[in-house]
Amino acid sequence: MEFLVDISTNFPEGMDPDVIAEIKGRERERGVELMTQGQLCRIWRHPGRRSSLSLYEVADANELHGILSGLPQFPWMDIQVTPLADHPLDVSARAGS
Amino acid sequence: MEFLVDISTNFPEGMDPDVIAEIKGRERERGVELMTQGQLCRIWRHPGRRSSLSLYEVADANELHGILSGLPQFPWMDIQVTPLADHPLDVSARAGS
Amino acid sequence: MEFLVDISTNFPEGMDPDVIAEIKGRERERGVELMTQGQLCRIWRHPGRRSSLSLYEVADANELHGILSGLPQFPWMDIQVTPLADHPLDVSARAGS
Amino acid sequence: MEFLVDISTNFPEGMDPDVIAEIKGRERERGVELMTQGQLCRIWRHPGRRSSLSLYEVADANELHGILSGLPQFPWMDIQVTPLADHPLDVSARAGS
Amino acid sequence: MEFLVDISTNFPEGMDPDVIAEIKGRERERGVELMTQGQLCRIWRHPGRRSSLSLYEVADANELHGILSGLPQFPWMDIQVTPLADHPLDVSARAGS
Amino acid sequence: MEFLVDISTNFPEGMDPDVIAEIKGRERERGVELMTQGQLCRIWRHPGRRSSLSLYEVADANELHGILSGLPQFPWMDIQVTPLADHPLDVSARAGS
Amino acid sequence: MEFLVDISTNFPEGMDPDVIAEIKGRERERGVELMTQGQLCRIWRHPGRRSSLSLYEVADANELHGILSGLPQFPWMDIQVTPLADHPLDVSARAGS
Amino acid sequence: MEFLVDISTNFPEGMDPDVIAEIKGRERERGVELMTQGQLCRIWRHPGRRSSLSLYEVADANELHGILSGLPQFPWMDIQVTPLADHPLDVSARAGS
Amino acid sequence: MEFLVDISTNFPEGMDPDVIAEIKGRERERGVELMTQGQLCRIWRHPGRRSSLSLYEVADANELHGILSGLPQFPWMDIQVTPLADHPLDVSARAGS
Amino acid sequence: MEFLVDISTNFPEGMDPDVIAEIKGRERERGVELMTQGQLCRIWRHPGRRSSLSLYEVADANELHGILSGLPQFPWMDIQVTPLADHPLDVSARAGS
Repeated sequence: MEFLVDISTNFPEGMDPDVIAEIKGRERERGVELMTQGQLCRIWRHPGRRSSLSLYEVADANELHGILSGLPQFPWMDIQVTPLADHPLDVSARAGS
Repeated sequence: MEFLVDISTNFPEGMDPDVIAEIKGRERERGVELMTQGQLCRIWRHPGRRSSLSLYEVADANELHGILSGLPQFPWMDIQVTPLADHPLDVSARAGS
Repeated sequence: MEFLVDISTNFPEGMDPDVIAEIKGRERERGVELMTQGQLCRIWRHPGRRSSLSLYEVADANELHGILSGLPQFPWMDIQVTPLADHPLDVSARAGS
Repeated sequence: MEFLVDISTNFPEGMDPDVIAEIKGRERERGVELMTQGQLCRIWRHPGRRSSLSLYEVADANELHGILSGLPQFPWMDIQVTPLADHPLDVSARAGS
Repeated sequence: MEFLVDISTNFPEGMDPDVIAEIKGRERERGVELMTQGQLCRIWRHPGRRSSLSLYEVADANELHGILSGLPQFPWMDIQVTPLADHPLDVSARAGS
Repeated sequence: MEFLVDISTNFPEGMDPDVIAEIKGRERERGVELMTQGQLCRIWRHPGRRSSLSLYEVADANELHGILSGLPQFPWMDIQVTPLADHPLDVSARAGS
Repeated sequence: MEFLVDISTNFPEGMDPDVIAEIKGRERERGVELMTQGQLCRIWRHPGRRSSLSLYEVADANELHGILSGLPQFPWMDIQVTPLADHPLDVSARAGS
Repeated sequence: MEFLVDISTNFPEGMDPDVIAEIKGRERERGVELMTQGQLCRIWRHPGRRSSLSLYEVADANELHGILSGLPQFPWMDIQVTPLADHPLDVSARAGS
Repeated sequence: MEFLVDISTNFPEGMDPDVIAEIKGRERERGVELMTQGQLCRIWRHPGRRSSLSLYEVADANELHGILSGLPQFPWMDIQVTPLADHPLDVSARAGS
Repeated sequence: MEFLVDISTNFPEGMDPDVIAEIKGRERERGVELMTQGQLCRIWRHPGRRSSLSLYEVADANELHGILSGLPQFPWMDIQVTPLADHPLDVSARAGS
């Protein structure tokens, strides 16, 4: 099942820049891992904002929550999840390709 | 450039069902065309709603407006457009594949 | 997977009361069927409102959309869907019972 | 009477992790107690969020406020309460089971 | 249990004024009845608006829904219900009087 | 003239508990005084929230502002005021009692 | 007591222009009357909108509701009322003039 | 003084297409006139929407209201006006050019 | 040109009371000055809130921004500005007086 | 492609004024540069607010994000981006000039 996931990340004013850099590094590595494994299908930036939009393909909301709550930046994230259902146009396009 | 496009469609109460069916048929055909040409990359349904979410890849907002305003159901659509910027994770994943 | 589903139903002013009564009858029958089959687990009313809150247990958003879009009153419904993930407290309570 | 209760919990940045762990432990114990006693009927997680959704069955808003304001995490909770009325479909399903 | 009930009433443009007058008359009679019986404790107008604010004292959300959905103007009402819990100041003031 | 007053109170994280207790004590005393004098007619709690709903009867918005801005907890309160007009049903009920 | 009153007026599509003109004429006359009597102190237009902002000085919410609900255009108005309290700066400026 | 003006235009379902075409023609002519005279400086489309964004330079809100309320499509427009103040960067750039 | 200006002022928790008192004193003096000079025509309090509503008469948005951004409390203010256009009723009333 | 960009800037309470002044200086320099290069076409102030509105002309959302995220004040900015499409009126006016 696919989910659209909108994530804003805000580190608190005054947080140690080295700690932030280390967390961002781990976040990036975990992102690569999730893309390689196929749960994270696409990810975009909202221009001008400290936030991203991702497309996840997972078994269900439990797997999704497990992944999101395990992200290194999770404690500083505000996350909005939108469940997606298949659209017949998309299904046949992907079947035909 | 990619755009996320959220479309709600509401035909007015009392509209002729045959006219609606004919318009829906043309909408479907145009959708297949846009997917084949590559401007419409993905499309999903919001479960339980008369609305869809689409991912478009077009030159710019002008090409997008041209496509959307030419959809057969456009007069009955309420459309929200979100511009998307590339995310480095996604760019390298797609470059590496 | 469980979903919380908030449904407002508004028949247009001037719609034939007999038609409404017939649709409501079919909606009720379909509701009984969905409860018997186990997809619709619970349903409540919002006091004072023409709307309900339901708890569905289905395979995914596709099965949910199939059920909701097939409801007799679907053309007059405004539906909000909230995806739910398991909470450990609930899981152990239900496992222990 | 049943109530749907949406709870977001946010500990302030910089709060002692041991204190948080101890409070979370007491929250869990109190949750088990409330489920065993039957006031807390169901509880879910909002995927990707630090918040939960609960279904309570209590005498009235006074008993509910007593329970919620006594939760160990109450000082850091933002709570939204929705009163629920019975739906005839649900009542007969539960009577028949 | 007490509830605060905010009611907006909008008759559709073009509805027969005699029918409206008759419905308003029955609404008034039912209001007097509910005040005499004690379920409707107080009622105010929002200045400048076609809406009212009422204080109900009923057993629970079921009794409240029964009363509200039986109001003669119910089909044209938009209703918001707020559940209320006792405040110790109010309880002692009323106990002492 | 009557006003409905919705008050949320939030003491800042880390404020001295003894200071809070002392302020709450003075707030309670002032509340009793206002109920005895008749300006504060009713007060309720929003279940699960750190907020209250009050019904005031005062000369006008000036007397109301004087009372509210003089409450011991005023510096930590967020207040919403709703002006109320008489409803004929209520006036006759109170006249007849 | 002063109130700020925001009024949007929308006549339904297809309403007879002569009827509208006649109602607008009576609204204007009533406005002149209210300004002459001093209850309506000031009135402005929101540029580009079919709405106005007025400053009323009346005894209380009852007098205000009486005036507003008696306006010729009242059935087609959506009205928002804001109660105002005196500001010391304004009071002394007006006392000194 | 400059104003940003956001205009949504919605003709009612069932309005005569010839009447709409004639009104649109007059709107276009008036737009050219306003651009030539310099009050309408820029105009854009919101991609996918039946709405535009304009930049006006006029003496004040009175001149702006006069222009907007005189547009042929005004009866079917919903308009939001944002007043703009000069920014020093812009002023020097325009002075230097 | 007239503007309605809604100002909320919030000093941060823990700010030195003497500094606040000194700033409030300068704010008051500046307010008297602006009323005397005629730019600030009226000012009210929102009952129960730490905010005010003002009516300004200035040349344009530039003069308004200059005045507001120069207020002693500006760094702690959240300001909403509404541009106002003349209403014919008001213009003739003021012309006739 | 053009974008409308709404930027609010809020430095945290207690930040060193010299650091703020230095950052503001660099922001101004970067603004001049962007105007000279033509990416930043226009910029206005929202009267009374710590925010600005800008009109950017860039290749796409990627170039825009690169520019905005590189602004010296970016860490303290909240940014809203609106994509703009050409309007035929504007295009011919600019072609003709």
